[in-house]
Amino acid sequence: MQTRRQFLRNGACTLAAIASAPGSSPLLAQSSAASGGSSSDVQTLRTDWQFLRMPLAAPWQVWSDQPLAPWQPVTLPHCFNAHDACDPDQPAYRGKGWYRRTLPIRNPSPGGRTLLHFEAAGQSADVFIDDTLVAHHIGGYDEFTVDITDALPSPDAEKPARLSVLCDNSPDLERMPSDLSDFTLYGGLYRDVHLIYVPAVSIETMHLPVRIEDATLSVSLSLRNPSQLGGSVYCSVSVTDADDQVVGSFQGILPVWQGMQEIATIPIPHPRLWSPRSPHLYRCTVTVRTDSGESLRSERFGIRSFRFEPHGAFFLNGERLLLRGTHRHQDHADCAAAMTADQMRAELQMLHQMGANFIRLAHYQQPALVLDLCDELGIIVWEELPWCRAGVGDATFQSNGRQKLSTMIDQHFNHASIFFWGLGNEDDWPGEYPSVDHAAIRAYMSDLNALAHSLDPNRLTSFRRSDFARDIPDVYSPSIWAGWYGGRYQEYQASLEAARPTVPRLLHIEWGADSHARRHAEDPYAHLAGVALGDTAERGLAYQSHGGPARVSRDGDWSETYACDLFDWHLMVQEQLPWLAGAAQWIFKDFTTPLRVENPIPRVNQKGVVERDLTPKESYYVFQSYWSEHPMVRIYGHTWPVRWGRASQQRLVRVYSNCASVELFLNGQSLGSRSRSPGDFPCSGLRWMTAFADGKNELVAVAHLPDGKTLRDTVQFQYQATAWAAPAELRLRIAEPQPTQSALQPNLYPVPQLATARRAPQPLVTVEATLHDARGTLCLDARNRVRFSLAGPGLLLDNQGTVGGSREVELANGRAWITIAGAAPGSVLAITANGLPTTTLPLVPAAQRS
Amino acid sequence: MQTRRQFLRNGACTLAAIASAPGSSPLLAQSSAASGGSSSDVQTLRTDWQFLRMPLAAPWQVWSDQPLAPWQPVTLPHCFNAHDACDPDQPAYRGKGWYRRTLPIRNPSPGGRTLLHFEAAGQSADVFIDDTLVAHHIGGYDEFTVDITDALPSPDAEKPARLSVLCDNSPDLERMPSDLSDFTLYGGLYRDVHLIYVPAVSIETMHLPVRIEDATLSVSLSLRNPSQLGGSVYCSVSVTDADDQVVGSFQGILPVWQGMQEIATIPIPHPRLWSPRSPHLYRCTVTVRTDSGESLRSERFGIRSFRFEPHGAFFLNGERLLLRGTHRHQDHADCAAAMTADQMRAELQMLHQMGANFIRLAHYQQPALVLDLCDELGIIVWEELPWCRAGVGDATFQSNGRQKLSTMIDQHFNHASIFFWGLGNEDDWPGEYPSVDHAAIRAYMSDLNALAHSLDPNRLTSFRRSDFARDIPDVYSPSIWAGWYGGRYQEYQASLEAARPTVPRLLHIEWGADSHARRHAEDPYAHLAGVALGDTAERGLAYQSHGGPARVSRDGDWSETYACDLFDWHLMVQEQLPWLAGAAQWIFKDFTTPLRVENPIPRVNQKGVVERDLTPKESYYVFQSYWSEHPMVRIYGHTWPVRWGRASQQRLVRVYSNCASVELFLNGQSLGSRSRSPGDFPCSGLRWMTAFADGKNELVAVAHLPDGKTLRDTVQFQYQATAWAAPAELRLRIAEPQPTQSALQPNLYPVPQLATARRAPQPLVTVEATLHDARGTLCLDARNRVRFSLAGPGLLLDNQGTVGGSREVELANGRAWITIAGAAPGSVLAITANGLPTTTLPLVPAAQRS
Repeated sequence: MQTRRQFLRNGACTLAAIASAPGSSPLLAQSSAASGGSSSDVQTLRTDWQFLRMPLAAPWQVWSDQPLAPWQPVTLPHCFNAHDACDPDQPAYRGKGWYRRTLPIRNPSPGGRTLLHFEAAGQSADVFIDDTLVAHHIGGYDEFTVDITDALPSPDAEKPARLSVLCDNSPDLERMPSDLSDFTLYGGLYRDVHLIYVPAVSIETMHLPVRIEDATLSVSLSLRNPSQLGGSVYCSVSVTDADDQVVGSFQGILPVWQGMQEIATIPIPHPRLWSPRSPHLYRCTVTVRTDSGESLRSERFGIRSFRFEPHGAFFLNGERLLLRGTHRHQDHADCAAAMTADQMRAELQMLHQMGANFIRLAHYQQPALVLDLCDELGIIVWEELPWCRAGVGDATFQSNGRQKLSTMIDQHFNHASIFFWGLGNEDDWPGEYPSVDHAAIRAYMSDLNALAHSLDPNRLTSFRRSDFARDIPDVYSPSIWAGWYGGRYQEYQASLEAARPTVPRLLHIEWGADSHARRHAEDPYAHLAGVALGDTAERGLAYQSHGGPARVSRDGDWSETYACDLFDWHLMVQEQLPWLAGAAQWIFKDFTTPLRVENPIPRVNQKGVVERDLTPKESYYVFQSYWSEHPMVRIYGHTWPVRWGRASQQRLVRVYSNCASVELFLNGQSLGSRSRSPGDFPCSGLRWMTAFADGKNELVAVAHLPDGKTLRDTVQFQYQATAWAAPAELRLRIAEPQPTQSALQPNLYPVPQLATARRAPQPLVTVEATLHDARGTLCLDARNRVRFSLAGPGLLLDNQGTVGGSREVELANGRAWITIAGAAPGSVLAITANGLPTTTLPLVPAAQRS
Repeated sequence: MQTRRQFLRNGACTLAAIASAPGSSPLLAQSSAASGGSSSDVQTLRTDWQFLRMPLAAPWQVWSDQPLAPWQPVTLPHCFNAHDACDPDQPAYRGKGWYRRTLPIRNPSPGGRTLLHFEAAGQSADVFIDDTLVAHHIGGYDEFTVDITDALPSPDAEKPARLSVLCDNSPDLERMPSDLSDFTLYGGLYRDVHLIYVPAVSIETMHLPVRIEDATLSVSLSLRNPSQLGGSVYCSVSVTDADDQVVGSFQGILPVWQGMQEIATIPIPHPRLWSPRSPHLYRCTVTVRTDSGESLRSERFGIRSFRFEPHGAFFLNGERLLLRGTHRHQDHADCAAAMTADQMRAELQMLHQMGANFIRLAHYQQPALVLDLCDELGIIVWEELPWCRAGVGDATFQSNGRQKLSTMIDQHFNHASIFFWGLGNEDDWPGEYPSVDHAAIRAYMSDLNALAHSLDPNRLTSFRRSDFARDIPDVYSPSIWAGWYGGRYQEYQASLEAARPTVPRLLHIEWGADSHARRHAEDPYAHLAGVALGDTAERGLAYQSHGGPARVSRDGDWSETYACDLFDWHLMVQEQLPWLAGAAQWIFKDFTTPLRVENPIPRVNQKGVVERDLTPKESYYVFQSYWSEHPMVRIYGHTWPVRWGRASQQRLVRVYSNCASVELFLNGQSLGSRSRSPGDFPCSGLRWMTAFADGKNELVAVAHLPDGKTLRDTVQFQYQATAWAAPAELRLRIAEPQPTQSALQPNLYPVPQLATARRAPQPLVTVEATLHDARGTLCLDARNRVRFSLAGPGLLLDNQGTVGGSREVELANGRAWITIAGAAPGSVLAITANGLPTTTLPLVPAAQRS
């Protein structure tokens, strides 16, 4: 268990300070001060849990000495789909999972309350103390607090309380999001759980709206006072800036109140505005004292103004700002939704280093830490109600949805980064109900729209894709997937301009392309002759890789090369349109989905610019070259060890850089300098045609910075001038461990190496498979689907959702990889593929047998 | 789809005739005759099903074109735990599974009804036609009929009906049996489903009680008449004997009635009595004709009397009969509860050939075919309500239980073989509810007892193990597990005699021992010095293999040798006690359980005398030697290829035979003749001490029959006079396919080879593993737990619940086996064990690579 006191006492909460705190939920930013009490008042319950992934018939069976199956020790956060959401052979578990642990209760406040605060639980949760159901919570993404005081055993009994939590991610028509959603509805206690002691009267909620006209902060509080005590409350408010200087304060005595009440208005002199370039945050600390004790709440807020012109651009603090965005699911290799704080921090850092100033948090409320990081890093947020693909259900469904919207706005109200309350996504999707009822969907969307405005008049509402309701939200995005699900990317600008007049305020949300990491193409357009121009929207079941008209998503090679060109084109267009508010590419990181089992990595949506373990694909650098203000240069193809063509054939070298000019060297010889020329596609003109030497080659790109310094990027590769015949033989060899995100990331942007549970304690062996023709030549365009299997000791580190972490996967340029943990003498790896002989490899030489 | 007409028109239904019919449920023995109609009126729905093992949110999603996972084609019967109930690594799936198929409906009767008849569905079932819930059935073992007529699409629409069935085996406190039960509560449509057309008025139920005093048959019918049509009914009754001779008849016209009504009483002249030795069956065929059409029902019955003396013996038709019994679960390798008719028939034949005349069907209503076979083979039945280990639940639980008891009695009323209605088992087991309420259990048992007597005054009620209620049922068994869970088997007679005066009528139900097939011991008593005499009951958690006092089940070697001695002793005692009514050994066939993951075959109760695939263990022949009237002789140790000891050490040879004398030959030399001497333990005196030759040996036993013929049994084995040191090396070699039940069964009792789904279409390779010391000597007492794994093509035929079909299993005398289907060049098998180096074996020589 850990205390938050240190975190709370940090006047200015920097990224580094956040880094040492395991989370920053509003409720956690509180404290009670019982007389002389020195024990922690917030304890994060990470350890001592046990888990059972099966239904039980009654809560007392949790504590039976005859369990139907052994309980597994786990630490939180924990997702019970950590390793099955991208299993190639079977869908993820949808059902019940039980957690249990004991709680030693030592509330320092006489008459105080004992709370459990859940940062979320997927997808619904029943909380029991012994046999007593204390709370039933619906919805997998919002925070909730359970007051367990009255269910606890008598303190005289001196026995710990027995806590159990039943999580359930079974399909449920009355719960958002829809089970037809294109992402996994994870189960488990995948965010932190805290044990909190507060006095009998404490702060429940604090809202900090700022009147922008005169920079006046309003401090509104609601009290948690379940015993309905009366009397008066001493309130003390202090406002500090990022330098920890007090800029305003208030003290007063008020009678105990109910509901949300404004207790103070505090003008902020010389306001320092929040923006992506200068994300200044103030902190407001409130202490409330009654006869029952003291309760403290400390939260941050920002001051900023914005304007979104009808059919036009977005302005922040009076200046036009192009929203350069991407998306995020809470999903990661080896842990699924149960990401650690370190993982979230690394992800948001990488996203920020790519240059993004905007993110849509798809498709649900995300952890408070993510919002804290967006506050600190200056990333504008569209946060979204998970009304995704459901249409409109019954009254319970609608009530649940209203409640989730209210909760999200209430819990994330003070985050400076949030500008848009997303109301939903793709509610024109058929299938969950027998019909799609346009009128009912419009009515419910209008209802939610009004609710959001009433709860928070200072932000905009937004929605993506339900064209029959595009007039309802403040901001809307139609479906435009130029060059992927429909048409060619060259049609992108025309699609935007056609949509512009039909939408009150247009943000282009969701565009992009899948790419199979480490797959590269000399000609990514080879299979696309049949793709017709015209309709760039995703229609019907276009997401499937079969059926329907010709389209790049079905017929293309899913290479990183094509994706980079598509991204390059889109970014070029977006930067050139003065009226455009912005756009958000789908999606920053690969993630799992119950659909798409036929993808190159089964059940993984591969549209990320980084893999599911944060390993960047080449496209990460395309975005960086457009968006980042830090100088960078990147030669395309760091994971492309063999290029091919006829002897002396001219080949394209792509370089992505935000520097004014770059000089390229091949095998020590300059191929000349190029100036960066926005609008010159591809690579803004930083491209060279050249013939490579047969065999080994080295390319060096040198970018010149204004200060006279240079940046340099180098790739080494083979050129294979030999053609290859039909695939004949799979080979296996022990390889260097597969590159991780920190190895692939340039030195200037280090990303911490992330530990993963399954690989940590054991020796690792990485194996590379290659496919050759009968003469032994590597088949460089081979995309065969292969399957790894292991006999003997060890564990395939599979079901990671990465190109190097799947036991079934498509080859990338004739290659595939897998890592085995705990291999020992006798471990044998096999690779199989339809129509090819099986190949095996002993993983540890027999000579090493003990 | 198949018709039953042929079956129905067989006057005398022999075993062979049954063999060609897929079942014989009472409802199926009916027919409607619409004018000129010639289509089948009963169709068994085996094919064209699809299955999805996951929950859905709504029934219309069954037919969605965007399924969350692919539907699997299946044939019925189908159990969704066919391959996971004895997985060593995870408990069986407990949850929802969906079945769907379309039904072309062509009811030949104008105004007729269309029914679905389920022989059972585990453990509860919702039946839908399209989105319409037509029926919700609770309980996994009784038959139920669903009238789908009103939910069908209009015949004018000319489209097939869409049928879906949601099966659910989630834990449920309100459904019997308890989830703490020591067997798997399987899920699925694991018995047949039939589509039946009947006219508007048809026979629903037919009961055929016989008044034994004057051998008078009473024919009682209830009508299915949902439209409540009036008018009159023409009834025709014909009674035939086993030679198809009419022995009685009746015709008459009656007004339409409601409920059960006696329509005729028919005296049976010169009654031929039913008994195990002469299981004569009569057949009663009833035709009911109204304006709406004709309905036919044909069922069998028997005439027999019995008497069970207080504290004493059982008499059938006036003669004492010792009930020589065993038990049966509906459970089989590779299919779990979804046994085919062929499998059930083979099992009951084997059981009958062993000599059993009594069976307790544990712990639930079993398929009608099983009862038909007991009727025909002359096996007296205790059939049981699944009130197993539950204690007493709420009013819904109790109501469900009463209903299941009523249904069982109603549906199996006419089976001549049934003598006992078991009310339950082990309802003193703690854990499902917070406490065991003796008074409530007594009250509910009394309630059930009265209900059973009121529904069927001509049979006895029975119960096993709830000592505080032993006075309530007609027949009771306490827990006596002499020599297994408590004490020594030598205490068996004393335990019986101590129980006799405390019980109204004592039947000793459940006794026996686990044995690991193919494990044999020169000294099965080596580890048992600490087992105390005294208490032979199973107490507390004695079933676990750890904790508690010393006992054979924990400390013994689980060898077949010990089990044979224990069985031999018990059978000897049972045959000697003139006052004993009988006993039932637990259990005929190994079966799965969610408990006992630590067993030599994980999650398999190994107390069977045959393995889970019907392969007999040695103990099968111990029973046969006591019970069978067919001459047999069997040398112990057909699966014991290497015996051991010091050079020239005297070793025991056990021979089991029911012949008067046996002569034994070792390597061609007579060791002398022995006479069978009941009471001379072991082997009724048919035992020899002898020294074996080092190396190869052959034993031949020759039994002399009264007619001058001889029976002969031969075993060949090695004798290993060398001691072995610590285990050092596992070896693998391709072996002959593992012996099947038909190979091991003596020629005189052939058992059909059963097909199993996973192995049928593919080449099979069986591998034998052996454990050796550093000098290469086989470690003949090794019991190490080993694990097989496979790389490359193929499928381990594991999770069979057999010694040769488990990927994790304990060695039997230093050996283990696994079979691989579909191995191909590149397939590599590995075997691992704690503390030993891993060994691998290529399954197909590289020279065979194509």
